[in-house]
This record gives sequence, C-alpha cells and structure tokens, in this order.
Amino acid sequence: MVTVTFLPLNKVVKVPSGDTIFQAAVAAGVPIQSACGGKGTCGKCKVQIPVGKLVPEPTDGKGFLNEAERAAGWVLACMYTLSEDLTVRLGEQNDAFDRKLSMDNIKGFRIEPSIHKVQVLLEQPSVTDQTPDWERLLAALPNLEIPFNRRVAANLPKTLRQANFRVTVVRDGNDLLAVEPGDTEGRQCGLAIDIGTTTVVVYIMDLTDGSVISSGATTNPQHVFGADVISRISYAASGPDQVSQLQAKVIDAINGIIANLCAKTGVSHQEIYQTTVVGNTTMSHLFLGIDPTYLAPAPFIPVFRQTIEVTAKELGLNILETGKVIVLPNIAGYVGSDTVGVMLAAGVDRLAGISLAIDIGTNGEMVLASEDRILTCSTAAGPAFEGAEIKCGMRAAEGAIEGVRIGENVELDVIADTKPRGICGSGLIDAIAAMRKIGVIEATGRLVNKPAQLEKLPSAVRERLRRNETVSEFVLVWGKDSATGEDIVLTQKDIRELQLAKGAIRAGISILLLEMGIDEQAIDRILLAGAFGNYIKKESALAIGLLPPVLLERIETIGNAAGDGAKMALLSVAERARARVLSYRAEHVELSTRKDFQKVFISALLLQ
Amino acid sequence: MVTVTFLPLNKVVKVPSGDTIFQAAVAAGVPIQSACGGKGTCGKCKVQIPVGKLVPEPTDGKGFLNEAERAAGWVLACMYTLSEDLTVRLGEQNDAFDRKLSMDNIKGFRIEPSIHKVQVLLEQPSVTDQTPDWERLLAALPNLEIPFNRRVAANLPKTLRQANFRVTVVRDGNDLLAVEPGDTEGRQCGLAIDIGTTTVVVYIMDLTDGSVISSGATTNPQHVFGADVISRISYAASGPDQVSQLQAKVIDAINGIIANLCAKTGVSHQEIYQTTVVGNTTMSHLFLGIDPTYLAPAPFIPVFRQTIEVTAKELGLNILETGKVIVLPNIAGYVGSDTVGVMLAAGVDRLAGISLAIDIGTNGEMVLASEDRILTCSTAAGPAFEGAEIKCGMRAAEGAIEGVRIGENVELDVIADTKPRGICGSGLIDAIAAMRKIGVIEATGRLVNKPAQLEKLPSAVRERLRRNETVSEFVLVWGKDSATGEDIVLTQKDIRELQLAKGAIRAGISILLLEMGIDEQAIDRILLAGAFGNYIKKESALAIGLLPPVLLERIETIGNAAGDGAKMALLSVAERARARVLSYRAEHVELSTRKDFQKVFISALLLQ
Repeated sequence: MVTVTFLPLNKVVKVPSGDTIFQAAVAAGVPIQSACGGKGTCGKCKVQIPVGKLVPEPTDGKGFLNEAERAAGWVLACMYTLSEDLTVRLGEQNDAFDRKLSMDNIKGFRIEPSIHKVQVLLEQPSVTDQTPDWERLLAALPNLEIPFNRRVAANLPKTLRQANFRVTVVRDGNDLLAVEPGDTEGRQCGLAIDIGTTTVVVYIMDLTDGSVISSGATTNPQHVFGADVISRISYAASGPDQVSQLQAKVIDAINGIIANLCAKTGVSHQEIYQTTVVGNTTMSHLFLGIDPTYLAPAPFIPVFRQTIEVTAKELGLNILETGKVIVLPNIAGYVGSDTVGVMLAAGVDRLAGISLAIDIGTNGEMVLASEDRILTCSTAAGPAFEGAEIKCGMRAAEGAIEGVRIGENVELDVIADTKPRGICGSGLIDAIAAMRKIGVIEATGRLVNKPAQLEKLPSAVRERLRRNETVSEFVLVWGKDSATGEDIVLTQKDIRELQLAKGAIRAGISILLLEMGIDEQAIDRILLAGAFGNYIKKESALAIGLLPPVLLERIETIGNAAGDGAKMALLSVAERARARVLSYRAEHVELSTRKDFQKVFISALLLQ
Repeated sequence: MVTVTFLPLNKVVKVPSGDTIFQAAVAAGVPIQSACGGKGTCGKCKVQIPVGKLVPEPTDGKGFLNEAERAAGWVLACMYTLSEDLTVRLGEQNDAFDRKLSMDNIKGFRIEPSIHKVQVLLEQPSVTDQTPDWERLLAALPNLEIPFNRRVAANLPKTLRQANFRVTVVRDGNDLLAVEPGDTEGRQCGLAIDIGTTTVVVYIMDLTDGSVISSGATTNPQHVFGADVISRISYAASGPDQVSQLQAKVIDAINGIIANLCAKTGVSHQEIYQTTVVGNTTMSHLFLGIDPTYLAPAPFIPVFRQTIEVTAKELGLNILETGKVIVLPNIAGYVGSDTVGVMLAAGVDRLAGISLAIDIGTNGEMVLASEDRILTCSTAAGPAFEGAEIKCGMRAAEGAIEGVRIGENVELDVIADTKPRGICGSGLIDAIAAMRKIGVIEATGRLVNKPAQLEKLPSAVRERLRRNETVSEFVLVWGKDSATGEDIVLTQKDIRELQLAKGAIRAGISILLLEMGIDEQAIDRILLAGAFGNYIKKESALAIGLLPPVLLERIETIGNAAGDGAKMALLSVAERARARVLSYRAEHVELSTRKDFQKVFISALLLQ
C-alpha cells in the first residue's frame, strides 16, 4: 500500500501500489476532473507532483501537457502509476471547454487586436531641445491623438533613460498603456473572461497568434449568497455595501486564477494588456460594482446596455493597471453579453437562412436570426437542467448518469465509468426520452398506471415503476448497483420539473417563431451552446420536445460559444464592433408581456 | 487676570483682564496672523470663540467677518477684549491674499465654468419601455455625447427611484459627474489651489457667482524633505517610493484644508465638482505623482507641459470622486503653471505696449510681453528674499523689520509693532536701499571704510558700522532695543547674498529685453506678483536696481496673481483655453545657454 496526500485539501488515502493517482483521488473522494474516466484521452485530470519525482513517459498522445508543465511536475493523474508515497497538488477546476479557439472554424476571422506595440528610438534631450519626455515620446508616434496617461508618465523619465531612449510603446487604440524598456514587440497577452453564475472561466490569450496560452476556472464565489441570479440580486439590494462585496468576490476569484495562470505559464501580469468579459446581465453589473437591484422585479431594468470600458486599476483586476477591461454589451435584463458572445461565435448575423441559437443554463437564452432580424428572449428554465431540484440530481461530475437506454432493461452511461451516484441534466433528458419511448411516461408526463399500459412493458422495466398513495417514481438504479447503496430514482415530481424547464425553453422558441412570423420547418439550423448544449443527446432533446422537430443533422453543438465570443472580441476590433452592432440589432422579446405566452407554454409542456 | 486657552495647541496663558485675544496670543507665543499689528485693519487675526460668548459690536468696518462667521463665533482677535476666562480656537494660517477675486478688475471676464447642472424629470420605466437607467437619463440630455461613468452608474438606480425620477444632473463639459436627487441647481462649488514650495493655499469658490466662499492655507508639508525644489527633487530621486510619499504629503495637506473649509462653511465634499491647480513645475509633477528627477540636472527636462486632467478619486483628493482635477499647463522646467496663472490674471496677452510681470520667491519667474511675443525665464533668486541665508533674516512675521529709514539715525517699521526680532526680505531691500543712499554701502556693495566716506555719515549711523579683521557689519538694532537682547545686524555677506539674488533677477530681465530687442525705457508697466511683490517698497526696489529704472507709477502690485489665475481657470472655460494658448505662445529663454548671461549678471550685481 502507498499513502497519497492531496493538497490543498490535505486529504490522505491509502491505496494499493500500482493504482493510478486518478484511482487514489476517486478513492479519497477528492474532486478531480475527468471526461474519459481515466483513459488518458481527455487531458482533464492534470495534477502536480513534486519536481524530481519520476514522471512516466507521456502517454498523452494528444499533447495535453506542454514542456513547461512537465518541467513543473504536472502529470495526468490517470497515467501516473503509484509506486511510493506521494504528495499530489490538485489542479484548479478546469473548464470543460478550454479547447483552442480554432480561428479556422470561424469564417472571415482576422486577428487584429486593439493592442499595438512599436519599438521607438528617441532623440536625447539637450539644453537646445528641452521638449518634455511625454511630448518627445508622442513625437515618435505620429498621426495618433494620444491622451495623457498619468500612470505611464509617472515612471517615464527613468524608463527612457535606463533604456537609453530605446523603448517599446504599448497602446490600445489611441491610449498609451505602457512604455517598456528595449524591444518587447513579440510579447502581447490578453484575457478573455466568461463570468457564469456558477463558474468563472479565464483564458489567457496570445494576441499575436490568437492561441490560448492557458486557461483556468473556478466556482463563482458569489454562490455563498445564493445559487441563482435572483438570490444574488436580493443580497445586493439588502444593504449599502453588498454590491461591493459581491464585486470583490468575483474579482478576487479572477485574480486568483490570473495568479495561477501567470505562475504556470511565466506570463507577467504586466504583459496582460487587455481583458474582455462576457456574462449574464446580473454578472456584468456585479463585476462592475453597479447596483443590479431593479433587474429582479418587473419591469426588469438594467442600468446599462452598451459596451463598458474601464481600467484594470479601477476594478482592481491584476493585469497591467492601465489596461482596459472591456465588458461586452448586453441586450436586456436577462439577455446578457454572454448571449452576445454566443451570437458572435455562432455568427448568427452571417449565416444564410434561419438560425436558432440556444444557451441553456439556469436561464435559457434564445436567439432566432433571419437575414433581416435578430430576436432574443430568455426564460427562467429552472435549475432542473443542472440537476438541482431533482431528487437524485447532481452536476455533470463523476458518477453522474449521463445516458440512459431502455430496452428489455435499463442501461446507463456514467461519467468516469464508476458506480452511479445520481443523474445530471443531460442524463435526465435522456432518461425521460427513453421512458417516454418505451411507454413508462405518457405524453402528459404522467407515469403510466393502467394495466393495459403496464403489461406492454418488459418485466425488468415494469418492476422499476413504483406507484402507490405516497410514492410515484421509476427506479433507474437499484441500491445494490449504486455508489451510495440507495436506489437512484426519477420521481413524478422530477418529471414535472423537467417539463416546466423544457416547456419554458420550447415556449420561448415558439414565441420567437411567432414574432418572426415563420414556423418550425423554416429553421435551417439549431446551434446548442454551453456545457449543457455540449453534453445533451440531440435525439433525446428532440424526443421530449425540448427542441422543435427539425432534422437531426440540422442540430449542431458549438461549445462554450460565450467564451469564444469573449476571445474573438479580445483578438479583433472588428469583432468588438460587431458585438456592439449585434447588441443593438437584436430585438428583445419580453415574454412576460406576451398575452399568448401562457397558452404556448401549456402546450409546450407535453413530452412530444 | 484671566486665563486664555488656545486650541488646538492647548497652550494656556494668564493676561490682565482688558487685554485683547491678540495680545494674549502674543504673550503665549502662539502663532497668530496679523499684518496691521492689532489695529483691526487687516482682518488676518480671525479666531473662534465658543458660540454664545459675548461678541463685541463688529468694529471691522471693512467687513472681514460675514454673518455666518459671526454666528459661528469667529472674531478678530485684536478687537475682542477679554473680561473672563476663555477658550480660543486659532484659525488656520490664512494666506495674505484671500481677497475676493474681483471680476470687475479683469476686463472681459465672464463666469462660464465647465460645470453645468440641470434638473430633469424622467419617464418611469415599464415592461413596454425597458430602456436601461443610464440610457433613460441620457435621453433627457440631448445633443451631448456623454461617456459612461461607472461610478455614477453604480448608484443610479436607487437615486432615480428614491427621487421619483426627478434628479439634478451635474456635468463637466460632456462628462457626467453626479446625479443628485431633487433640485440642487443652486449649489455649485469648486476649488482653486496654489501649491507653493513653501505654502499651499486652497480657495473654495462659488461657481455660480465667482465669489470666494472661504480659503485656507498651510505650510507645504514636503518642507521636511527640504526647503527648496532642488532638495525635493533630490529626495524624490533617492528611492522608488519617494515620489508617492511627496505626493501623499501635499495631498494630505490639501485634504486637511478642505476638511476645515467644509466644516467651517457647511459646503459638502460632494458639492465640490472641480479643482484647478497651479504650482511651479516641480510642485505640479509631485502633486500628480510624476517623477521630477530630471528637472534638476541640465538640461532640466519636465515630463509634461500641457494641461493635465485627472479625477479626484485617482489622486485621492477629497472632493466629489468623479470631479476633475485640472493642473494648468507649465512652460518649462522652471516656469510652471503658477507663472501661467500670473500671465492669466495679469492679462499680459491683452495689455497694450510692453509689460513685465515678475513673481519673486525662492525662484524668480519673469514674463516679458509685447503685443507679438511673450518671453519667459526663471532664475534661482536664492532664498535671500525670504530672509533665509541672512544672518538675522526671518520670514515676514511678527517682529520682522519690514521698513528701514536712515537719516540722523536709523528708524524702523516692525511687523505687529513689537520689538524687532530680525529682518524679512522686504526690510532687507529697504535697509540696503537706505544704506546705499546715505553712503554706508558703495555701489559695489562694499560697506564703506575709508575715513573720507565715514566722516560724511551722521555719528549715530557711523557708530553702527563695525569693521575689523573678523567682523564687517552694520547694526540695525542695538541689543537693548531688540526682542532677543542681541544686536540685529546686516553683514557684508548678507549684502552679497542680496546682490546675488537681485542680480539674478535683474539679469533675467535684461536678457529678456535683449531677446526681444528693446531697452528698459520701452517697458510700459512692471507687474509685481506674489507675497514678496505685495510687500516690497517699490522705491527701494528701484533704488537697489532690482527693477530696471522706470517711472514709479509704472510699477503695480497685483497680489497673488498665480492663485487668481487658478480661480479664473476654475470659473471660465475660456480662461482655461487661454491658459493653454499662453503656455504654448510663451517662448522660454533658457538663461544657462546664453553666452552673454555672465556679463549681464556681473553688471546687474551693482547697487544702482
């Protein structure tokens, strides 16, 4: 047996020699990311071991670890076999979508950031040329109207003289951000940040080639004030300092990620010249320290809608202090810059025909675009899709049922291939689609009960249906097969929760179609964004009627499109301008004012 | 006897009943301002007594105390007769020049600040009008391109709703500074600040009528790092945090004055919407936290020259945090925005003929203006004019000899009419002029020694001349008549110091005349600015050749013109624009590059 200590949790576990770190982590119950369940194919389970410990030949043919990471002791937990006691530092929680932004996928994308660096050699001053340092510098940058920047000027004299008047000027458009000694033209970094209600993701980007240098994610620490935006707004409204407190939480979290990323990659905070940010409207308000109180009650009024630029110093974000933080525009109280990011990355304004883009989380935001109009709306989808409010629900983590097939009996796909612990959102949809198909549920969502219905079911399925005066549920996993020893069930109430959530999304889609005056058959493509969109089984989403009936091949998943939008806006002034145009072109449809919403919603509840 | 306690020093003194507070202050040795020596004619000795104490009928016919001050217990110390024990709070050190800026004196001056307030009533939002609060507000301010202001937006929603959408918008040009509930159009304040190397003066101004609401002054606390700008620059250059330290000192001092002024006048910090600042180039750099290191060595390079605008928040100045702090432009390393202020207030660009404006302190700055050209230069006048480096020198305070007449004997004017303690700069000039006239000094500055010279002197004067191998001096006051019991003398070295100082000024003037190609007779007026210019006897300044020989009536004193310039720039955008123009029109003559300077300087040393 060997002893493994997991930092920073300080959790200790004994496992047989020959086990992997991944298996030890699972045994210890410490959180470790994995999408492939320990097969070495997803690269998510990075952990750090003391430098100098024997590192096995990298078997990650996909190159999940770069040279610098290996040198710093990073290994894939599932590829490292334990032969002695070991201390392991867990990696921060990595987002599932930190894939490289593939510029090739996005037509017409050109890297043209607003950050420019240029090396200049200035004439030295003399008694016959007493031009002040600032003017001397500006004379080397003709045809630009550069405003004075006190912070840059403060240390300019020493920088110029120590570098013998050969310096590199960093500017953001017409703003002068920094003057660096010597020639530093080659190094230019920026951050793209996606502030979710649940998770904050930070990408550190190379502005010269558009690549993701590294990325990190963490739970949004505002969650201690409530899981959803309404709770956060209530908290913000409860006192004079609460907005600042919420703001500080998220900024601290981002600074923590930045510190880790800088330490890991060798990028200096001073070389990060710009940050773009997307988030829902509430997150954007809180990030900027702006009171979100009146987003919560009708008529749901935000304070601002446009692109906001502030300096990093003003917000306390740990990048170059003069660097700009650019929060992409939002559209309405519940359609935020994350949706604008989705629109950018999905290119809804450039696609022929009719596109429907959907980003489902606690809220569902929808965009319906023709070549003439772009409509948006949002619905409170409820937390069912995130596994909350569901009796055996859980987030999409190890042990979550993510796929369900029902034939003669129930077959499951479980994340990380372990004993199941519960069911996540995509599993829920899959389960209900399968139950509906085999006849365990009626179109109304009711678990079947009539003898004629029951006798059609295979016996192994039928005996999983428990229905009496106090209980009405379907057993997905018997206790003997579950990780907890308890049955994993779907209750009648769980099914109702899912129906409400999917009904809200589907009703939103229907209202957008009505507003545009077209029907479902006119939809040329459905683009599913975000974590949920990535995991969901398209067939099941169609089967339960979450999505309108279109051909399967017209449904595409587009990954973390909100984050991709932030990256695009960072890398291209043209994309940033496009974000502005999109935010103003988009027409927001306020569902609460539609007299026909209730009728549409009720018919959208049906599982068909 | 009555007991008087002076706050904040907590100094206690017993004096006879019937004495004035002023006499008690002198007896206690506490610092109290006075120019008239207790005659009730200068208004400088304001002190505060407990409200409710009997206040004598105001005998200050000149209206030194306004209604509000009287109500708050302010009295003139020299007009208040003590009849019982009393606690007295000393006023802060008031500047000698806090007179009302008399707009009538300045031709063409119109009050047109960049601060504008307008009351608006907004439409309330609804589900059919979900316009964000910021856009709703801007819609009420048409034809303005107002950039987003995060700090104003942060609390906008509550302000709007608590005020039922009736608010007053405060803007500075196109910048939105504040949104105040209700109608506050009547109240608008600003600050004009004059940062001297020795003294910092703050004027709180009413932007609606241009009046000085109140003013305060304090010693520039940077003096602990040296009395002159060169010492401050050396200190700033000595380490990485020193500039910030110097900046913090002066900002703390200003904040202290602001706090006092606000407490005294009832003006809130939040109602002070803008600040203009003048100072020499070093003071401007330090105030902004900008490294002044390379101002000290040749070629004397400043970092900036133009008008600088930063927010109060950025500098930590305690006015409305979004308010702008506007530092007027400087001209060169040793011709600062204080000189631009002098040019503004003196109107050198608007006067017919040839004007010479001089501001003498530790440095002397000179402006020579024709209708076509404006020339400036500065010389290190040395501290002689401030009484430093002079054996019995002192600042112009109580006990300082400020006037000297010599006939059969020596007659003196002493500030506050007490026994003399020393001699101040204006007294020094007066003394040397008188000594030269009666023949105690030769034109070269040498104290006379030859029998033929000595026998022409009245005996009471002759016996004051002490000349032997170790001593060469003139006794102004015998020990029996002085406050200290020691003789008050002028030494040969003192005379040399004065000659160096006056020679530098006069040489600067001569070089400017040469540069403009005119001679002394062409000068239509000489304008003397600043404290020294106010106190100096014009006849004596002419007599010793500090000023070129012009008719006496062509010499005018113009008070604290630098501070007046700051006030004008605060009160009028046109004046601010004029300051910019003046700073660029002014041609700086660098004396150190003039080959003819040494020759001119040597001939300027002569006392004639």
